[in-house]
Amino acid sequence: YANATIPSYRLFITAAHADKPSKKEVKESPTNAADATYPTKEQLAQLVERHQVLGVSMPVRSEFIRDSPLKSDDLEAIDIKVYHRKPVTISDHIAFRTVKFLRFFADAFFRKRYVHRAIVLETVAGVPGMVAGMFCHMRSLRRMQNDSGWIEKLLHEAENERMHLMIWMNVTNPTYFERILVTLVQGVFFNIYSFFYLFFPRTAHRMVGYLEEEAIVSYNSFAEQIRNGNIKNDAAPQIAISYYNLDKNARLLDVVYAVRADEAAHRDTNHHFADRIDAHNENLSEKFK
Amino acid sequence: YANATIPSYRLFITAAHADKPSKKEVKESPTNAADATYPTKEQLAQLVERHQVLGVSMPVRSEFIRDSPLKSDDLEAIDIKVYHRKPVTISDHIAFRTVKFLRFFADAFFRKRYVHRAIVLETVAGVPGMVAGMFCHMRSLRRMQNDSGWIEKLLHEAENERMHLMIWMNVTNPTYFERILVTLVQGVFFNIYSFFYLFFPRTAHRMVGYLEEEAIVSYNSFAEQIRNGNIKNDAAPQIAISYYNLDKNARLLDVVYAVRADEAAHRDTNHHFADRIDAHNENLSEKFK
Ligand SMILES: [Fe+2]
Ligand SMILES: [Fe+2]
Ligand SMILES: [Fe+2]
Ligand SMILES: [Fe+2]
Repeated sequence: YANATIPSYRLFITAAHADKPSKKEVKESPTNAADATYPTKEQLAQLVERHQVLGVSMPVRSEFIRDSPLKSDDLEAIDIKVYHRKPVTISDHIAFRTVKFLRFFADAFFRKRYVHRAIVLETVAGVPGMVAGMFCHMRSLRRMQNDSGWIEKLLHEAENERMHLMIWMNVTNPTYFERILVTLVQGVFFNIYSFFYLFFPRTAHRMVGYLEEEAIVSYNSFAEQIRNGNIKNDAAPQIAISYYNLDKNARLLDVVYAVRADEAAHRDTNHHFADRIDAHNENLSEKFK
Repeated sequence: YANATIPSYRLFITAAHADKPSKKEVKESPTNAADATYPTKEQLAQLVERHQVLGVSMPVRSEFIRDSPLKSDDLEAIDIKVYHRKPVTISDHIAFRTVKFLRFFADAFFRKRYVHRAIVLETVAGVPGMVAGMFCHMRSLRRMQNDSGWIEKLLHEAENERMHLMIWMNVTNPTYFERILVTLVQGVFFNIYSFFYLFFPRTAHRMVGYLEEEAIVSYNSFAEQIRNGNIKNDAAPQIAISYYNLDKNARLLDVVYAVRADEAAHRDTNHHFADRIDAHNENLSEKFK
């Protein structure tokens, strides 16, 4: 991981911004600007294109970042450290019971339709990271204090879950009913989770930790169905191959292992964030004690 | 810009995840996991640390990404293409008038206290990108469609504005009254902007375009006050030096030029986004016509 020592401001590259300005142009204030400097919509589009954002849609786990593509063996070897965090406090129990309660409905609704289950649940999984990242961002602005790394982790998680959704969308299409369901569930879940995060961020992170534990269980069953031959082990969609740096002949089972590894990383992060709040030790640049 | 050709999945590096798992550990479902795999809080913290997010807090403009630090000449040479986009439609006029109306209060309140002005207004500037990015993310989840690059640009803008705030916080301290003002203004602005973005995204982006035009005017006046000697040209804060890759002897004036260049990039992006919505040509991976 030689690259890990590159200072972070070297990693995020924007496209070249070519011409030099005349001094006059730089000094003038916009409302007095000469008509000559007024760009057409097409010129403006070109200006914007020069500031392309690269460096996003990166995998969360370091295992996917290496020179050679990952083979099935590499994916099975990723250490997802399966564990269950036993609930201790009342907040833990509320989080755990809520997740188990929700799982009951998901199991009843989807049964063995694992790809459909993945699609619908990933549309939900993309919400908590974005909501939490947004609140941390707003708090940083409001208190005028830096946030010590929460925002970037949370938004990265949200983006990662959205990528899971895009991947499963390339495997099957949701039914019309599922599309409506997703819209309704987002409307409810976004608001409930926002309320929760504002007032009980500790419980909110613990809940996501437990949701991710359950996500691992579901992806384990999904994998088992593929290994049993009940679900066809089709070719992996191209988006998954490029996102996870997979071998070009990768199959669906490889994708399931890759996604499951991400869920394990989210589980760790969210349980840890709850622990951090517990311990009043929220600055990620300080060692957790 | 040799780096610009590196595939994006090479740019975002997470720390190494060391050990290999036993097969047993991988296959087991969490609720049956053996006690041996149950991590302590400290072990969990270590797990999470291995997935550090690098590659964020990157500058928006490519000019800051190069091997040698930027000197004052380099900063003055950045082409910010000063222009004023004349309002055309009613939506444009509403956006423009709203911004001019808000500017009136800002001018009356801050007069020549440019650093304080920057602090207070950057806490506001960090809101639109985050709100818009969040809505685009939620829409992508809800419609189960990829978003063609809006989310990353918008969140990058929000992060960039937050960095501006962190930089000015290292130059001076806001007054107690300003701190209260910031909290109140965020409460109002966040809600109004969210409402606006949901129903009139085109006008919302146009408004930000005009806000950024005005930000350039303000930073021009700020720069002029430094050049006149009315504001002391102190040493640049360390956070600005590392964020913008500035010379280690950089001064406050250099920082003003760097921040102003960012505002120009936001102005271009937001006017362009409004143009894109206008033209029903919202897919950023398609050429703007
Ligand atoms: Fe997921
Ligand atoms: Fe997840
Ligand atoms: Fe700014
Ligand atoms: Fe800005």
